[in-house]
Amino acid sequence: MPDFNALLNPRTIAIIGASPDTARLRGMLPEIMVSQPYPGKIYPVSRSHDEVQGLKTCASIGEVPEPVDLAILMIPSRYVPDELERCGKAGARAALIVTSGFAEQSEDEGRGDQVRLADIAKAFDMAVLGPNSEGFASSTLSVAATFSPALHAPEKPMLPPWHDEGRVAVVAQSGAVGFSFFDLGRKKELPFRYVVTTGNEASTEVFDLVDFMLDEGKTDVFILFLEDIKSPDTFRSAARKALELGKPLIAAKLGRSEAAVRATASHTGALAGSYDIYAAMFHHYGITVCDDAEQMVDTANTFLANMGRLPKGRRVAITTGSGGAGAWMADACVALGLEVPELDPKAREEIDAYLPAYGTSQNPVDGTAQAIREIGYIRLAQLAAQANNVDSVVMVASTARKDSFERERPHFFEVAQTLKKPIACWSYTIPHKISQEIFAETGIPLHTNMRNCAHSIAALADYAEARARALSAPGKPHEPHTNMETVSELMAAEGRILCEFTARTVLAQYGIGNAPSALAKSPDEAVALATAAAGPVALKVQSPDVPHKSDAGGVALNVEGDEAVRRAFETILSSVRSNHPDADIPGVLVEPMTPDGIEFILGIKRDPTFGPMLAAGLGGIYVETFKDVVFAPAPLSETASQALLQRLRGWAVLTGTRGAPPADVDALVAVMVALSGFAADFADQIFEVDLNPVIVHPEGEGVSIVDALIVQAS
Amino acid sequence: MPDFNALLNPRTIAIIGASPDTARLRGMLPEIMVSQPYPGKIYPVSRSHDEVQGLKTCASIGEVPEPVDLAILMIPSRYVPDELERCGKAGARAALIVTSGFAEQSEDEGRGDQVRLADIAKAFDMAVLGPNSEGFASSTLSVAATFSPALHAPEKPMLPPWHDEGRVAVVAQSGAVGFSFFDLGRKKELPFRYVVTTGNEASTEVFDLVDFMLDEGKTDVFILFLEDIKSPDTFRSAARKALELGKPLIAAKLGRSEAAVRATASHTGALAGSYDIYAAMFHHYGITVCDDAEQMVDTANTFLANMGRLPKGRRVAITTGSGGAGAWMADACVALGLEVPELDPKAREEIDAYLPAYGTSQNPVDGTAQAIREIGYIRLAQLAAQANNVDSVVMVASTARKDSFERERPHFFEVAQTLKKPIACWSYTIPHKISQEIFAETGIPLHTNMRNCAHSIAALADYAEARARALSAPGKPHEPHTNMETVSELMAAEGRILCEFTARTVLAQYGIGNAPSALAKSPDEAVALATAAAGPVALKVQSPDVPHKSDAGGVALNVEGDEAVRRAFETILSSVRSNHPDADIPGVLVEPMTPDGIEFILGIKRDPTFGPMLAAGLGGIYVETFKDVVFAPAPLSETASQALLQRLRGWAVLTGTRGAPPADVDALVAVMVALSGFAADFADQIFEVDLNPVIVHPEGEGVSIVDALIVQAS
Repeated sequence: MPDFNALLNPRTIAIIGASPDTARLRGMLPEIMVSQPYPGKIYPVSRSHDEVQGLKTCASIGEVPEPVDLAILMIPSRYVPDELERCGKAGARAALIVTSGFAEQSEDEGRGDQVRLADIAKAFDMAVLGPNSEGFASSTLSVAATFSPALHAPEKPMLPPWHDEGRVAVVAQSGAVGFSFFDLGRKKELPFRYVVTTGNEASTEVFDLVDFMLDEGKTDVFILFLEDIKSPDTFRSAARKALELGKPLIAAKLGRSEAAVRATASHTGALAGSYDIYAAMFHHYGITVCDDAEQMVDTANTFLANMGRLPKGRRVAITTGSGGAGAWMADACVALGLEVPELDPKAREEIDAYLPAYGTSQNPVDGTAQAIREIGYIRLAQLAAQANNVDSVVMVASTARKDSFERERPHFFEVAQTLKKPIACWSYTIPHKISQEIFAETGIPLHTNMRNCAHSIAALADYAEARARALSAPGKPHEPHTNMETVSELMAAEGRILCEFTARTVLAQYGIGNAPSALAKSPDEAVALATAAAGPVALKVQSPDVPHKSDAGGVALNVEGDEAVRRAFETILSSVRSNHPDADIPGVLVEPMTPDGIEFILGIKRDPTFGPMLAAGLGGIYVETFKDVVFAPAPLSETASQALLQRLRGWAVLTGTRGAPPADVDALVAVMVALSGFAADFADQIFEVDLNPVIVHPEGEGVSIVDALIVQAS
Repeated sequence: MPDFNALLNPRTIAIIGASPDTARLRGMLPEIMVSQPYPGKIYPVSRSHDEVQGLKTCASIGEVPEPVDLAILMIPSRYVPDELERCGKAGARAALIVTSGFAEQSEDEGRGDQVRLADIAKAFDMAVLGPNSEGFASSTLSVAATFSPALHAPEKPMLPPWHDEGRVAVVAQSGAVGFSFFDLGRKKELPFRYVVTTGNEASTEVFDLVDFMLDEGKTDVFILFLEDIKSPDTFRSAARKALELGKPLIAAKLGRSEAAVRATASHTGALAGSYDIYAAMFHHYGITVCDDAEQMVDTANTFLANMGRLPKGRRVAITTGSGGAGAWMADACVALGLEVPELDPKAREEIDAYLPAYGTSQNPVDGTAQAIREIGYIRLAQLAAQANNVDSVVMVASTARKDSFERERPHFFEVAQTLKKPIACWSYTIPHKISQEIFAETGIPLHTNMRNCAHSIAALADYAEARARALSAPGKPHEPHTNMETVSELMAAEGRILCEFTARTVLAQYGIGNAPSALAKSPDEAVALATAAAGPVALKVQSPDVPHKSDAGGVALNVEGDEAVRRAFETILSSVRSNHPDADIPGVLVEPMTPDGIEFILGIKRDPTFGPMLAAGLGGIYVETFKDVVFAPAPLSETASQALLQRLRGWAVLTGTRGAPPADVDALVAVMVALSGFAADFADQIFEVDLNPVIVHPEGEGVSIVDALIVQAS
């Protein structure tokens, strides 16, 4: 196990390829590093310069007088692997490779070299960051191992003065974006502990570092910027650990668009994967997803202040001195799924005592400028927070002048310490420096972006829910189904595609739907089956070579009467044969028509990174149009399946609308649990399962699986 | 017509109620006003002080030695009406009423006083702003007639130094929010001309001022913050004028949430109205809607720079020195409906000449730090803009250091002058002061918020489309239908509710669907009608007292055979009679079952502000669940109806998905045009029309109006 502490908090550092020319990256990094009050030793290594930044250079890593904790490599890519090996031999415990030109360029050579870097890291058990990394900053020892311009301001300390230690970590694959969080966050007085950019991740990945930082126990909030996840197991265990410890992860993931997927591949050689699947994994682990960098920093700020008082629900009290700004905030909150109820009468009564006739205590509480002057912003917020029917409070203020906040400063401290519900402030004017400091030192998060303020309160509520869900359901290990062996044999006997007849036979072993009876191989057999069904029937051709039965003319619905059944059988066979002359056709399924219900789709997709994922959505033309599909990693419990359904925008359709009866959600959930268990048992064998449609009947009447298809991994 | 120039650019000002106590609003306003280099004359009026801000006071408005252009009233509300009258008599041409306590407070007295203010304004033809206004600022003469802290920084001029004149106007109902735009925007070097806050709008409304500023011809972009619109005609004509002149309106409207509606009513006495209807009106007039204040300011900035080069489409080129940041921007653009295509080969070739092996010209164009140093940010953007398959260009840059921009400054000027496509920059680091100034003085918009940058480019594309649409369809006056008179008589003969039979008879006169044949009044008549229909029929009770037929047991579907028809008729009558014992039941409609198609809903709602609005959406349980409904003001042309349908998320359902045939959109559009014409003809008489469902058959097969209801205004 490599020692990430040697990487991030090194006592000795060698900079290989250091240059006195501060217009070049090789010169910028030492310049920035030396500008910080780093107490350890720095050894520049250079063959062409005697001195860099006032420090005497060594000609090679071998000549550095002591083994270093951290070696920084800033030399041309072709020399990097050998040099890394020399560093290992010289006893370096960690390395940062800044050099570009590995997996991110199109040539194969770069990719091969990157694999070699990973091998060397492993051989020497070194913590290796990069290549193509913009480096890192670590505030404990004031290490600035980066050429990022964000650190190029030595007059500004890494930490705000009211913090002894950093509490926020940024871990980002992109260097520029990683340090941009620091740049934005420092301006907002965020106490950063680490800013690490992982580049191509030859050896060290984002979640390796998250795991280390969680174990270290000093980081309270994480900001993550991801292009891909290479080791899903590391991700899963670190994400679970973070959730259990109550250390929120705030993440952005590239690849919602084709263009970003393209760019990512060429940028760090990452494979972006399906954004929807990542989003499902993030939701599963209570990871907060944000839209932009400022929103992430703002959300981190709100989490930092409120982790000890997570909200019990989504009801927000809004207090303000400006009616317009307060109402605007109410709109922003509700747009993000929060609620803004009228405060309960007791709270209103207490507030009303301070209000002029043109103010209101309803919620938003419009104290008017007058009441704000009298009792102050923070005490008005405190009064509103006392209402029994709210879970958090948003203070809407103008912080452009400092007077009111200087006056209120003691109350700020008191409220920050004693408040039992989360609080955040949105300032609709640009904060005065002093106002901002009062917020920062008392730990009440100050937002200048209204939407981000509302979003961060919603994120607290989401996080509280996800954490409660996770802690109440300790991950018990998945147990394979008792029929797994039987099914394994059944599947082995089939080819890549299992058509409906075989697929349903397999799934029935898992308690999913019922196995179809015999296949009709002749018109007479079809008539016999139809007679047994007593009523109109559906005829469906069965062939592994014809996965799309309807398109091939292989389906007849609502057929009734011997003659009609006979004719339908023959029409089906002739049209399928003409469309697929070489198809192997074991027979035709003849079954009663399915009674009415809600058309639904269930499926399994094997994600190349995260394995089997269950997909669920409303069926028919609507699912395609509204793209209302949700995903979750298999297997799923009953509770998780139920929760997944509730995330559908079309959830209301299942609960019964317009006088329609509620659908049999329990039966649907049972299928989801069983199907996801099947997917987990055969995680490596199954490429795809489609139950389309599943008809969900009214409550108590179960579901019908009208069609099924299994595709095995090839 | 009041003279808004006297209000906004006064040569003489009286401040009635001025005080030397700068801790009070009455003292803050004179303090702020005097701190600006206003060249005109200021007369403080006070009975209790001899001097305010070094200026000798007058004891009353009558003692001011000359008639003033503008009187500012800061006295208790009970004295305001009489004082306003005195100002009018003294020859004041305009007044600003800062005092609160009128329509926004619950007492009736306040409302009455506010009406009196309007009457006085009219009597003296005075331009009166307020009451409950936070005042205004006007940069031409440096008038700061406000107590807003945003103006409380005399060291900072109202205009950035590279602008002789302001070009941006803020007009806001909320004072605090209005000046927050100024506060945010000045920091971003936006050249403000006016910031006006209208408060309770007793007399002067937001669009009165927009109209004045459009006529003045100096304002190029408007930022509007609305609680309501009181005079829809003023809105319509000013909005249309702005669109024709190419002066974009950027607006936010309170009232998306119940809580905001509540707050608005108590805040300025405004009635928020339906947000959806406002959104439809904004879309109709090409008004850009934003989520928050910073987004509005950022959008204004982008419009200001690019009005002369609006995009021809939604394809964006992204250039960057950071692969991660560029890809993130691509995701943001695509999420907002923009496209990021691979650049055409010619453009790629030219760019490739400057790129190292680990850069890429595909799009996002990742120039890498190396290429940025070589040719610079702006020239890289210029190269990408030359691609034939893009309509605009977004430059993603780090502006935390100034060096590169100082070097590139001449190119910035050149590109800003010559570029034919719109451009915006997102800086992922906080801009260096010098970098920011270089962007500002050359007029290339610099964003620090990624999402806002992408949003502003999308807004340009939306605006270009709206403007092209409006200019190509000069608003020809609506012509009443030739059958209007017949219909007028038909409707006059009916009560408030016209049930299906009567409603369809009326609508058929407008060419909407077909009039139903006779009503069955007995089982035998029902059988006769069913026999004529030849096939299964639907029976539907007809009664103005039973608008919800199905709920009352008044509908039977798919009935076939004499006996069944007879039985259905009797069942319907008995169950409707038991549910509605007093209902007048003219008969039962017996008609052939409607063939299959897509379930759709059309309707008319009369909005209390904007009059009749057409509503359109997919029908069935889905429309309720997904709330996929769009609105537009009636009447609509064919083109407008077609465009409205395309705004439905479910639009794809109409065009044919999953092998389903495309629906008869032309027939649906014809009904929309006719229905909206009907609504326009009877704008005052119709409260509501519901065609639910309208079944849209496959192309060429028309639509069926299966049910209809008209509710007349009472």
